[in-house]
Amino acid sequence: MSAALAWLDAPCQPLDETASAAARKRQDQLTKPFGSLGRLEAMAIELAGMQGTETPSPDPVQILQFVSDHGVAAEGVSRFPQKVTLQMLHNIASGGAAVSVMAQSLGARMEIFDLGMVTDPGPVAGVRSERLGTGTGNIAREPAMTESQVAAALNLGRAAVERAIDTGARLLICGEMGIANTTPATALACALLALAPSALVGPGTGLDSAGIERKTQVITRALALHAAPGHSPLELLRRLGGFDIAASVGAFITAAQRGLPILVDGFIISAAALAAARLNPATRHWMLFSHNSAEPGHRHMMEALEAHPYLDLGMRLGEATGGLAAVALLRLACTVHRDMATFSEAGVSED
Amino acid sequence: MSAALAWLDAPCQPLDETASAAARKRQDQLTKPFGSLGRLEAMAIELAGMQGTETPSPDPVQILQFVSDHGVAAEGVSRFPQKVTLQMLHNIASGGAAVSVMAQSLGARMEIFDLGMVTDPGPVAGVRSERLGTGTGNIAREPAMTESQVAAALNLGRAAVERAIDTGARLLICGEMGIANTTPATALACALLALAPSALVGPGTGLDSAGIERKTQVITRALALHAAPGHSPLELLRRLGGFDIAASVGAFITAAQRGLPILVDGFIISAAALAAARLNPATRHWMLFSHNSAEPGHRHMMEALEAHPYLDLGMRLGEATGGLAAVALLRLACTVHRDMATFSEAGVSED
Repeated sequence: MSAALAWLDAPCQPLDETASAAARKRQDQLTKPFGSLGRLEAMAIELAGMQGTETPSPDPVQILQFVSDHGVAAEGVSRFPQKVTLQMLHNIASGGAAVSVMAQSLGARMEIFDLGMVTDPGPVAGVRSERLGTGTGNIAREPAMTESQVAAALNLGRAAVERAIDTGARLLICGEMGIANTTPATALACALLALAPSALVGPGTGLDSAGIERKTQVITRALALHAAPGHSPLELLRRLGGFDIAASVGAFITAAQRGLPILVDGFIISAAALAAARLNPATRHWMLFSHNSAEPGHRHMMEALEAHPYLDLGMRLGEATGGLAAVALLRLACTVHRDMATFSEAGVSED
Repeated sequence: MSAALAWLDAPCQPLDETASAAARKRQDQLTKPFGSLGRLEAMAIELAGMQGTETPSPDPVQILQFVSDHGVAAEGVSRFPQKVTLQMLHNIASGGAAVSVMAQSLGARMEIFDLGMVTDPGPVAGVRSERLGTGTGNIAREPAMTESQVAAALNLGRAAVERAIDTGARLLICGEMGIANTTPATALACALLALAPSALVGPGTGLDSAGIERKTQVITRALALHAAPGHSPLELLRRLGGFDIAASVGAFITAAQRGLPILVDGFIISAAALAAARLNPATRHWMLFSHNSAEPGHRHMMEALEAHPYLDLGMRLGEATGGLAAVALLRLACTVHRDMATFSEAGVSED
């Protein structure tokens, strides 16, 4: 590992057990049978331990939206043409994408990154240009990233989280948009989990069975080329990942090191979460998991992370949309936790 | 059936297939792969068919909160003393209960009913007094309600929905609070589904295994007394239900007859939904289902109603809290459906 990436191994913040114990005690005093709000109670207690306060809140929510192209699109692994990445960057920035509407509706902040597409759009209002290349390499033929590219992606994720913390963010969600990016995410997860492509591959944005078969073959070729047993998680990330995934890995590890709670979105971001936890295992303690993706391989990643996502809505869009759906519930959970009366305040008998 | 209840059999409104088709077409044009928002898409499409508009909205949400006592509490089937019903009525009205905080947070309207507790609290600010007695009869020994009581409960549920519609409500949630009320709900569901108590009984607010065994025996006695094969669903409701359950049945059937969408809360309200669907089967078409209750018998009711609730958060509180958790997602689904850009608006390639 280069000296510029030595921070990846730095320790993560400990959780605040005193705050989570206080939150648990508070839940036990609220006017309802303990446990009767199920996971809404657990959300508040868990977030309390991360934020170090008895009464946590997800707000402000910071989304980091990583947009980039993936060279493996050349293998025909997506139903959509690659120019859609650029079109969707504009759509996200101008407010028309699903994530844009959700973020607006929920009052979440979003920083949108151009990490490198086939076409350089030049300056786009509301978009931070951090081009690392004209998309990644085609993983079926070559590594996704050079050593300097993966380092730059990790470091810009780190810098983005530091900015978010400096401006008061209390919950981090990474999102992504990039045609073909379920392919590198699947390949990386296969390599990290030592599973065959057939166990994880799925339709992505809507491949038919012939498309899934082609995608499986492409991932098989990529793994044969890049997934030698001796490779470190970082080397697997470099060879099989993407700018979006690597930036998210850098963001997640930094968030855990700085004590910012992470809400993990769907399939692609879960591959980043898995890679982050392999690079620096304590990162896992700072992760909440928003939803089960409809992409079938997602459950293998959740099992490996011992994660039990809140929602199971059949979503498979990415862009941080699954994360934002869960924010609506996290916010309700924290408001109930903060504002409900206790048994003694309300004069209600406990037993 | 008495003439005063002839309305129970009146036809329900048809769904607006044109509106749901328009909503489906709209979803297909929004800048995401069709289906990629999973059940969030289905929520908007289904609600469109109920509300008769391409762009539906759950707002304003109307909660009807039915508070009442249940005579079967005398059998020791709850962990909490019966006076908690009255204490919680005050807590709900003064803003300290879980449902109060959630309703405030989500901007939902709530009408709170005193349908008859052991103690008459007299006038309580924010509570509508519609006392039908000093709680229901103890179903282990006698019918829960007289014929006039069950008719009054059904009719006041009807009147409440008519008021809600007159003031612009676009989504109905019934909630309940009443110590011991999982027992009548379980008994009624057993009778309607022809299942043994052991298949449906659960801990309610937190019974231990001895308590569950006692509750099972109480329900067995109630079914032996009241669940003769020849009884109509209405007669089973009268004998085994509660003021809360009967008022919800009246509300649900009226909502379906008047075309107001219903969002079904948890265990007790699901028993009411089941009874409503048995009394007037087309009522089912107007029901959305919020969550899977942690109470184990709930799944049998959902299966019988062919329902697939949105959320699975281990909640078991009632009070409409499960319904309100789902409102947070329904609102997000409808906002995305209304505000996202189409492929042509955003200049995004469709395939």
